[in-house]
Amino acid sequence: METWKTIARELKLDMSPFLRVESHTIKLPDGQTLEGWPWLISPDFVNIAAITQDGKYLCFRQTKYGVQNTTLAPAGGYIEPDEDPLAAAKRELLEETGYEAPHWENLGKYRVDGNRGNGTAHFFLARDAHKVCEIDADDLEEQILLTLSRAEVEAAVARGAFKVLPWQTVMALALLRW
Amino acid sequence: METWKTIARELKLDMSPFLRVESHTIKLPDGQTLEGWPWLISPDFVNIAAITQDGKYLCFRQTKYGVQNTTLAPAGGYIEPDEDPLAAAKRELLEETGYEAPHWENLGKYRVDGNRGNGTAHFFLARDAHKVCEIDADDLEEQILLTLSRAEVEAAVARGAFKVLPWQTVMALALLRW
Repeated sequence: METWKTIARELKLDMSPFLRVESHTIKLPDGQTLEGWPWLISPDFVNIAAITQDGKYLCFRQTKYGVQNTTLAPAGGYIEPDEDPLAAAKRELLEETGYEAPHWENLGKYRVDGNRGNGTAHFFLARDAHKVCEIDADDLEEQILLTLSRAEVEAAVARGAFKVLPWQTVMALALLRW
Repeated sequence: METWKTIARELKLDMSPFLRVESHTIKLPDGQTLEGWPWLISPDFVNIAAITQDGKYLCFRQTKYGVQNTTLAPAGGYIEPDEDPLAAAKRELLEETGYEAPHWENLGKYRVDGNRGNGTAHFFLARDAHKVCEIDADDLEEQILLTLSRAEVEAAVARGAFKVLPWQTVMALALLRW
């Protein structure tokens, strides 16, 4: 099976650092050419399913502009330029919750949009998390730290209470793993 | 908790029907104003975890431009204008696999990007699927229909073999549900 080849790309919109949009010209394996294919370039990000030493999941209740409502959320955020995904996950967990964890498992990396790119999600499971400092988050949106039991997380995932796609994903993957 | 309010929006790029990009001016609960917030408008879509009458999961091996590789995939596609998400799911399953199913469960809807919108994913579990016709897909990318056991899907999800975010999500949610 052959993948499509990019034969030309044109920058259509620059809203750096959060978004650039390109138009791609693509050559298909059968020789056909597609023009004007939208392609999104946005920062890669991490999300972390973090479980404390006493078996509780660290989550937030927060508002989110894209949801226009409150939602449950895991820790997470954008990866800084040249930052390793695991280092970003450890940084975000510490900043957003004040917790560190000795055990980390990689839950995979996933292209956000199979057609148009739009960054890559990197997911992690952190176990035996324990509090080491106060919260130092730079997030503009209000968020309240919660500790949920596994049964509460199972119920929340079953009813879709993590309303943002990557958040639901990392919590579902954590439940399957641990 | 109060959500952010959109107080102005400006169209920055129109690549309809697949993408429009707006710049939003946003008022925060504390009175602060944010300008130039990128906002993505793209079609909502469905993905379906479909299980056959003999307990196999209907999946594809396919190439995907956004992945630049082969990947496992569930059935799915964009929702047509004014189409109900469940109707879209039934249509896509039939077109892509030739299967129909008598039992459907809703696995939730999720905003793709919590900050910038970019459409909503609607997920479904279809059970007791059975073949009723030949495949009639309009997808440009090559895909091969596979039937995988539950153990094979568990192993594929554990190693991140569904390489596109919503695909991994719907399969993980199906494993948790059934």
